[in-house]
Amino acid sequence: MVDHMELMQNEVFLAFASYATIVLSKMMFLSFVTGFYRITRKAFANPEDCISFGKGEEAKKYLRTDNRVERARRAHLNDLENIVPFLGIGLLYSLSGPDLSTALLHFRLFLGARIYHTIAYLIPLPQPNRVLAFYTGCGVTLSMAYRLLKSKLYL
Amino acid sequence: MVDHMELMQNEVFLAFASYATIVLSKMMFLSFVTGFYRITRKAFANPEDCISFGKGEEAKKYLRTDNRVERARRAHLNDLENIVPFLGIGLLYSLSGPDLSTALLHFRLFLGARIYHTIAYLIPLPQPNRVLAFYTGCGVTLSMAYRLLKSKLYL
Amino acid sequence: MVDHMELMQNEVFLAFASYATIVLSKMMFLSFVTGFYRITRKAFANPEDCISFGKGEEAKKYLRTDNRVERARRAHLNDLENIVPFLGIGLLYSLSGPDLSTALLHFRLFLGARIYHTIAYLIPLPQPNRVLAFYTGCGVTLSMAYRLLKSKLYL
Repeated sequence: MVDHMELMQNEVFLAFASYATIVLSKMMFLSFVTGFYRITRKAFANPEDCISFGKGEEAKKYLRTDNRVERARRAHLNDLENIVPFLGIGLLYSLSGPDLSTALLHFRLFLGARIYHTIAYLIPLPQPNRVLAFYTGCGVTLSMAYRLLKSKLYL
Repeated sequence: MVDHMELMQNEVFLAFASYATIVLSKMMFLSFVTGFYRITRKAFANPEDCISFGKGEEAKKYLRTDNRVERARRAHLNDLENIVPFLGIGLLYSLSGPDLSTALLHFRLFLGARIYHTIAYLIPLPQPNRVLAFYTGCGVTLSMAYRLLKSKLYL
Repeated sequence: MVDHMELMQNEVFLAFASYATIVLSKMMFLSFVTGFYRITRKAFANPEDCISFGKGEEAKKYLRTDNRVERARRAHLNDLENIVPFLGIGLLYSLSGPDLSTALLHFRLFLGARIYHTIAYLIPLPQPNRVLAFYTGCGVTLSMAYRLLKSKLYL
């Protein structure tokens, strides 16, 4: 019971826990966006999902792709591809004893970039809004990876 | 050598480690399901994969999508989208000193929900079986996120 | 400030941190490969992405799929599906006090297998190059899962 208390008294780790939880909740929110578009636009991937809209041939016409649904799915997959490295590298970076203000700068930039990326993808905003948000997120993660490997490499 | 021993003497963390390992192994199992359907139904995504079934034009006809394969792939992607937040939030939640019985309730519900989700997706069971399993999993993760942020928010 | 220092003095954990960071950076690299192929082969998923190549009907013809782009995307998704279990199980395994040389063997094999998998997917190399790299990666993760559950199961 001693150990985790100490970890949670580490301010950098506490900050990482807060930002990671928020960014993951935001990612889960995209599941609901996809579900919302699937229902309102009647575009499903599985036959059993459209049964309430009709039977037999009637139901089959809802087995289709829709621009809005595919857009939400791409935003979700892009989140997954970027948040997984942030989680892994960020956790290890937080434990490597970085400066609190530097760490907070990384976490805040990443959260802001990913929220902006989702907005730019869903509305959609014209480029280069989305691509800049994407590169900002990647830059934050790579900067943490560089600092971690520079100070703690063990191969 | 002292530290990790202490972490692994924390019962909540030990329980999280066990459930996370099982749910991740279950997710990896879906890779093999996809592979099994690809081979038995001869539906591949890459030209180099179907070379053993024929050459040239003969092989090209196996470059196709198949309902069973796509179903297994969607089940896999849905697992990934839901298990990543569970892992991230669950790890931090486990370190925040929750009540053991509350934590176990969360982990068990999540594991059960995801196993049921996979069964409902692969067979497939009629709705709302799959959607209820999905919402149960999301609910568990969001409940952990809420408890974590309520007690330990640091922005 | 004491705790994380101790964690980072644990050699197995330090090694895990290094290998996890490298394998996640490699995964992020595939985002750039996809982006590179999208631009050089003019194959985009969103209307707003191809606006710099023309307007209206001119732009629409770039909304298409391309073999190279899809190949990079599949390699990326396969990485995600395999690196997420490695991260989760590997982190918990590192904390469970394994033998340093055994742990290093696991981490090195996994990193090598995933790098070879990416090379085999992108070039592409004939099978069974890619499938062997895939099974090696899975085998490493399942071996860590087995060792973890054998020594520390708590359900």
